[in-house]
Amino acid sequence: MEKKIKAGVVGATGYAGAELVRLLLGHPQAEVAAISSVSFEGKALSEVYPAYYHLCDLPCGTQEEVVDASDVIFAALPHGLSQDLAAECAAKGKAFIDLGADFRLKSEEEYKQWYGGEFKDKNLHEQAVYGLPELFRSEIAGKRLVANPGCYTTAVPLALAPAVKNGLIETSGIVADCKSGVTGAGRKPTQNTHYPDLNEGFSAYKVAAHRHTPEMEQTISRLAGTPVKLTFVPHLLPINRGILATCYAKLRPGVSKEQILQAYEAMYEKEYFIRLLPQGRVADVKNVRYSNFCDISLHFDSRTDTLVAISAIDNMVKGAAGQAIQNMNLIFGVEEQAGLKIVPPAF
Amino acid sequence: MEKKIKAGVVGATGYAGAELVRLLLGHPQAEVAAISSVSFEGKALSEVYPAYYHLCDLPCGTQEEVVDASDVIFAALPHGLSQDLAAECAAKGKAFIDLGADFRLKSEEEYKQWYGGEFKDKNLHEQAVYGLPELFRSEIAGKRLVANPGCYTTAVPLALAPAVKNGLIETSGIVADCKSGVTGAGRKPTQNTHYPDLNEGFSAYKVAAHRHTPEMEQTISRLAGTPVKLTFVPHLLPINRGILATCYAKLRPGVSKEQILQAYEAMYEKEYFIRLLPQGRVADVKNVRYSNFCDISLHFDSRTDTLVAISAIDNMVKGAAGQAIQNMNLIFGVEEQAGLKIVPPAF
Amino acid sequence: MEKKIKAGVVGATGYAGAELVRLLLGHPQAEVAAISSVSFEGKALSEVYPAYYHLCDLPCGTQEEVVDASDVIFAALPHGLSQDLAAECAAKGKAFIDLGADFRLKSEEEYKQWYGGEFKDKNLHEQAVYGLPELFRSEIAGKRLVANPGCYTTAVPLALAPAVKNGLIETSGIVADCKSGVTGAGRKPTQNTHYPDLNEGFSAYKVAAHRHTPEMEQTISRLAGTPVKLTFVPHLLPINRGILATCYAKLRPGVSKEQILQAYEAMYEKEYFIRLLPQGRVADVKNVRYSNFCDISLHFDSRTDTLVAISAIDNMVKGAAGQAIQNMNLIFGVEEQAGLKIVPPAF
Amino acid sequence: MEKKIKAGVVGATGYAGAELVRLLLGHPQAEVAAISSVSFEGKALSEVYPAYYHLCDLPCGTQEEVVDASDVIFAALPHGLSQDLAAECAAKGKAFIDLGADFRLKSEEEYKQWYGGEFKDKNLHEQAVYGLPELFRSEIAGKRLVANPGCYTTAVPLALAPAVKNGLIETSGIVADCKSGVTGAGRKPTQNTHYPDLNEGFSAYKVAAHRHTPEMEQTISRLAGTPVKLTFVPHLLPINRGILATCYAKLRPGVSKEQILQAYEAMYEKEYFIRLLPQGRVADVKNVRYSNFCDISLHFDSRTDTLVAISAIDNMVKGAAGQAIQNMNLIFGVEEQAGLKIVPPAF
Repeated sequence: MEKKIKAGVVGATGYAGAELVRLLLGHPQAEVAAISSVSFEGKALSEVYPAYYHLCDLPCGTQEEVVDASDVIFAALPHGLSQDLAAECAAKGKAFIDLGADFRLKSEEEYKQWYGGEFKDKNLHEQAVYGLPELFRSEIAGKRLVANPGCYTTAVPLALAPAVKNGLIETSGIVADCKSGVTGAGRKPTQNTHYPDLNEGFSAYKVAAHRHTPEMEQTISRLAGTPVKLTFVPHLLPINRGILATCYAKLRPGVSKEQILQAYEAMYEKEYFIRLLPQGRVADVKNVRYSNFCDISLHFDSRTDTLVAISAIDNMVKGAAGQAIQNMNLIFGVEEQAGLKIVPPAF
Repeated sequence: MEKKIKAGVVGATGYAGAELVRLLLGHPQAEVAAISSVSFEGKALSEVYPAYYHLCDLPCGTQEEVVDASDVIFAALPHGLSQDLAAECAAKGKAFIDLGADFRLKSEEEYKQWYGGEFKDKNLHEQAVYGLPELFRSEIAGKRLVANPGCYTTAVPLALAPAVKNGLIETSGIVADCKSGVTGAGRKPTQNTHYPDLNEGFSAYKVAAHRHTPEMEQTISRLAGTPVKLTFVPHLLPINRGILATCYAKLRPGVSKEQILQAYEAMYEKEYFIRLLPQGRVADVKNVRYSNFCDISLHFDSRTDTLVAISAIDNMVKGAAGQAIQNMNLIFGVEEQAGLKIVPPAF
Repeated sequence: MEKKIKAGVVGATGYAGAELVRLLLGHPQAEVAAISSVSFEGKALSEVYPAYYHLCDLPCGTQEEVVDASDVIFAALPHGLSQDLAAECAAKGKAFIDLGADFRLKSEEEYKQWYGGEFKDKNLHEQAVYGLPELFRSEIAGKRLVANPGCYTTAVPLALAPAVKNGLIETSGIVADCKSGVTGAGRKPTQNTHYPDLNEGFSAYKVAAHRHTPEMEQTISRLAGTPVKLTFVPHLLPINRGILATCYAKLRPGVSKEQILQAYEAMYEKEYFIRLLPQGRVADVKNVRYSNFCDISLHFDSRTDTLVAISAIDNMVKGAAGQAIQNMNLIFGVEEQAGLKIVPPAF
Repeated sequence: MEKKIKAGVVGATGYAGAELVRLLLGHPQAEVAAISSVSFEGKALSEVYPAYYHLCDLPCGTQEEVVDASDVIFAALPHGLSQDLAAECAAKGKAFIDLGADFRLKSEEEYKQWYGGEFKDKNLHEQAVYGLPELFRSEIAGKRLVANPGCYTTAVPLALAPAVKNGLIETSGIVADCKSGVTGAGRKPTQNTHYPDLNEGFSAYKVAAHRHTPEMEQTISRLAGTPVKLTFVPHLLPINRGILATCYAKLRPGVSKEQILQAYEAMYEKEYFIRLLPQGRVADVKNVRYSNFCDISLHFDSRTDTLVAISAIDNMVKGAAGQAIQNMNLIFGVEEQAGLKIVPPAF
């Protein structure tokens, strides 16, 4: 039997960290070597998440213990805390996959503007690759530092990529109206996520002011080969998991529905994790829950020459922990789907 | 004591009908004179809706009985069944408020195209007024035949009216991304609205193909003074009540945020049922539930010169039964807010 | 026109306080004179609860301001904070209705045991009446200090009272399996009530150890004329409002189903707020939401000679704010149903 | 590589059938050989459940095709339809696991009384074993006809078994107050399970009259060695999955808390699928979702000498499809946990 990849999770008691552990426990070629948590140091993960009782009773240790025990370190930390850890991992020759935002933006200026921080080690930032395998797979394999994309920034670019890359839509006037489940807001209780306050409600938040805006623009601009700005409005759904991205773009003059469909099929037909739905179906977050799939449905408003591209992902899996494991698989050269062949429950 | 308005409800066991009864029971100047239901004829309304036990144990009678017993007839019927009833009410001199779509569209051609029916009596259609009081109040008072707007077609025009009417936004490229609670789908069980199928899910439906499209275009075109086409995508929310309309429109060149804010304040400051939220707040369906309010918040994406206007209503009240009562009040000359001064529960 | 009762709410930004304000705003013979909040002093209530925007923009003041401005003071405070306020109200001749637990238990020993506090002024405790009007109405009228019952302690005794009072069930072995909506846990966010943690879950809490146990035993013992102990297990439901109490008791030998039914009818037939359901129906929290009703259904397990009495209330209304207003009405001699004639929404 | 067990599912488009397919797709030693559905014959399963798109696009065939293609047939059929199929499987030498109720009751009299049917082939009924492995494992291995228990009838006996078997509780006066997620009601839409009717509601149903009563009494009587009758009241929870059984029983005189705890530990410590929670924790349906675990917590009301034993299962897994696969594993002699080592998601 092959030696398993030793995976460590820093920040294991947050939602993304806990989801990483859940998925790693089912991974045939990896094992959870160590976990850490500042808030729950010394406690078993199953005390924090009783769902894991008997399945992961590992105690939470320190960040250092995780680094030393692991071949690859996943960091599920608040923004700003990953840069030092990445440097430490690099120094010790460990692979590092960052689920936070510290290495996602290539422009330090934008990072300053939206996150208020700076690049501590520009060298590291140059080494970091952006881990959206369906768009940038060739860059990831064998690398040691991966910036794992955010949830919205996975859903929106995947919905639009074939149209953008093939020059089929206007790149000005794009609207991304997105709706996210509550796990996206994290484990920490707040007034907004208090059950009676959220339940039976629905609203937008950070309207046209969310930090994921420059990140999705960076990806779409790269695909378009020209700078793109779009309008992004996130909403909070009273469900646990899932992001639905409803994306609107004008078709370029003369572009037909068939051209669009062909572009999507060509780009995605070999992608295991992208399910391009047959015409007539509509992407639903329900159908991807707990899995790494991204379902995409395409719709056309012929009255206004508008493409409506809708994508659905599980924000905790394809939008965080699942994609991170997909990146780990690419780094270590194991099957890309390993540990992620999950059948989404139908109900 | 003044004589109360005798109100009758045809189709009282559907959701809109039952909501009409709930609101009429609390109306100081009206009373429920009679109700009808094809499916539950002979049964008490409280057998169908046990919430009304002891409060409305009236038996469901026939449509004819309702017409004869009432000064005003509310029809909450499937599309296509209101035209004959309207004619009967007209013949008997009764006021008629139609919660269905039969009299909403002024163009018979559009009615044919979207509903597949025809105008049986063009005369009646000419008499019908469109009952969106905040936009067309002066036309409603004293009339006898009111087409009560649909839910989406209340939320979207109210969100955009001041900007459209004052020529502050481009009328091409408008996107209305709307999300509705499940009561909008009616009382009849379907697979889509079966609890385990819908719960923890979220998706769009009838993408760019919903029948409310021509109706909202009719209103917005009228305000704009020019034909407007827009892209409308409805989604189904796993909550009972509420519509959130997130509307996107390009600002016309040179238009400032302040001009927009002033236009909204000028148009809505005296409207009891419209609550223009202070800058910084975001409209939430939670805050209008069970009430006739329409909350509106305005947001600006300066990076793309886009106005994001968000409106929230309760689809069963301002989007159906409440607005119908508001129209009744206008017809009969009683205080417009009578029976509708409801404090939305905070949780 | 009669002068309205000036009502003040201390602790107005908690859930019970906010619900009091909602109900008082619709009360024809009372008005909100002043409100207070320690956490939000100086802020408008509608900033905390945007549902009330334009309807109650009153600023939160101090407790003293409330006392001075009001004829009756409602206290919605954490346990232990009401005794001093009650004394102050008594000194100033103001009526006082306590929604907390400080005056509910007649036994200081039990108060010490379950709440860890003591009776600061025994005299006050002797004056306090227990405000469950359907059971103890005659004691409440005209009094100045009312201990408003808790939510479980309203639902369970009302479900069992006629059977207990008429000696139809065994008083040992009673089981009260109760399920409460989340508003019962208050407005303060906690891990347990964080949306993703609670949603799609269900469990018991404080099993056989909840502080409402001695309070419901006090009421049932009084009705039985002998000390009664019962087993009480509360559960937390993933809904906002409502308590369902499923109560199990052995029928005394020879007692028939008909005797039970007659006892309930005799005791409750004139009670506006109690709806004894026809045989064959089952009480559902859905049907009493936002209202002061208590629905009761009776069931018999003839295989084990067990009465299953089920009651449903809205924990925030009949279980808190509504009952408090019912008590206010009794104190001030206005119609007992004033301000509480609410039709529960059917959906 | 070993040959995989060919598993067939009759009634694959119902909830239990679809869940069987989900679990079988992840089973390392079994494969889905064929599926059938009367309602959707000829359609792919993924057309009915889009969550399975690309993962199980098998077409639904006939019952006969399933029998011929499979080593083991799972029947997820309405009550009454399994007896003929069982006979056919027996004749063809195929293993048969019935998720319906036809073979659960050993007494034909009780079957007649509660289900209105009769035993067509008494011989078959004698061969049928009751598939609750934790209680009757030794009887299942190698058998060909298994009656898979119902959901409530798994949860309640597992909660009480050690106490009953060791004579630690009174066998009269047991109360099983149970709460089930909505998937227990099946896939067919009904008024009760229509989203707006169920959401934010909660009630009991079939009070002391549910068909699972004799089945749980059969199991508990067998453990007790004496006939036991209990009071069983099921409730419907507004969540998708899960059963919580709150069971009340009087301790026999002189029985201590420690004796109870030791009996549970002794009986369950080697059971992979039963997680006896440490004292102080409370079983929650949240923690077992999508898994085959049964979590049990024990509580004591010393004031009334009552044991409160609470069990939580996923009604679709341990209460249906998962337990059926556990039985398949026992029949075919593969590892009992094969295909069922699922980490329940924490949120």
